[in-house]
Amino acid sequence: MTEHLKKHIRDIPDFPKKGILFRDITPLLLDPAAFRETVDTLRSRYEGKKIDKFAAIEARGFFFASPVAYQLDAGFVPLRKPGKLPYGTISESYALEYGEASLEIHKDAVKPGDRVVIIDDLLATGGTAAASIALIEKLGGEVVEIAFVVELKGLGGREKMIAEGIEAEKIVSLVKYQAGE
Amino acid sequence: MTEHLKKHIRDIPDFPKKGILFRDITPLLLDPAAFRETVDTLRSRYEGKKIDKFAAIEARGFFFASPVAYQLDAGFVPLRKPGKLPYGTISESYALEYGEASLEIHKDAVKPGDRVVIIDDLLATGGTAAASIALIEKLGGEVVEIAFVVELKGLGGREKMIAEGIEAEKIVSLVKYQAGE
Repeated sequence: MTEHLKKHIRDIPDFPKKGILFRDITPLLLDPAAFRETVDTLRSRYEGKKIDKFAAIEARGFFFASPVAYQLDAGFVPLRKPGKLPYGTISESYALEYGEASLEIHKDAVKPGDRVVIIDDLLATGGTAAASIALIEKLGGEVVEIAFVVELKGLGGREKMIAEGIEAEKIVSLVKYQAGE
Repeated sequence: MTEHLKKHIRDIPDFPKKGILFRDITPLLLDPAAFRETVDTLRSRYEGKKIDKFAAIEARGFFFASPVAYQLDAGFVPLRKPGKLPYGTISESYALEYGEASLEIHKDAVKPGDRVVIIDDLLATGGTAAASIALIEKLGGEVVEIAFVVELKGLGGREKMIAEGIEAEKIVSLVKYQAGE
């Protein structure tokens, strides 16, 4: 129902490196009606669902999770790259194509039993997504859903999360592309 | 009038390095009423002022500018560190304590005559703030105001911006600390 948002997503070949077709959401952010529809789609999905926190993955996830948290009177939790969060943190590593990276959360950001929705701009291979779920669960939070504006199918991200125990119906995306499309 | 928001800002000594007292806004983000008041204070300030774009400085500026843009049906423009924006960009350098850094904007993010408000979480020495103003103006935009959640007084940030030609009354902050307070 929100596939028409694709007209506000720009294809950038060979970014950040040769052979990658990058889906640029900045035109969607620039168009007030498209940005509003994106935020409102997420907001209406979670309205009345008693979500305590919206957690967002650095940095493009912040664009969408912040207005949704604001609208639904929930807390906003940034999940950040190492060294960015100043208070006590826990960390979760994930594999990259070469090497690994990690993601951090403040220890006091989620309390046991909190109902949490994770939001990011894009699902590709699912590494940061799986790490973000692990962080919320380590703190005792319940991941109600994980929502993406864009899902790139064919890169194994959805399958990776399911393999790690997330139910398929908890993985939500507004716009889908087949990899290589 | 918003100084009471300080009770949601946490002091972290020696972050990111020894001798720096970091003002951590994540407790404010976690408290729905405090986050709402912060966003609403900015929203009501710009309501009816015909703002075309809210530009935010990576990454904590995104937390606040995005819901304000959403509320006021304006575009949202991320100002990012080098290499993060995929489309054509212009860049502006600024001095750090040792060395320099730069900030980028997409060339198509601001059009000549656009009325733009810049938002960031914190004003300290004013380097990124001055660079962000230069980027908007290079693209022909009019910087209506630059707004900060937290202003650290005594570090020269406000004075630096005024020296570069910004009128004092266009520099706005919700909460002020004296450096070393």
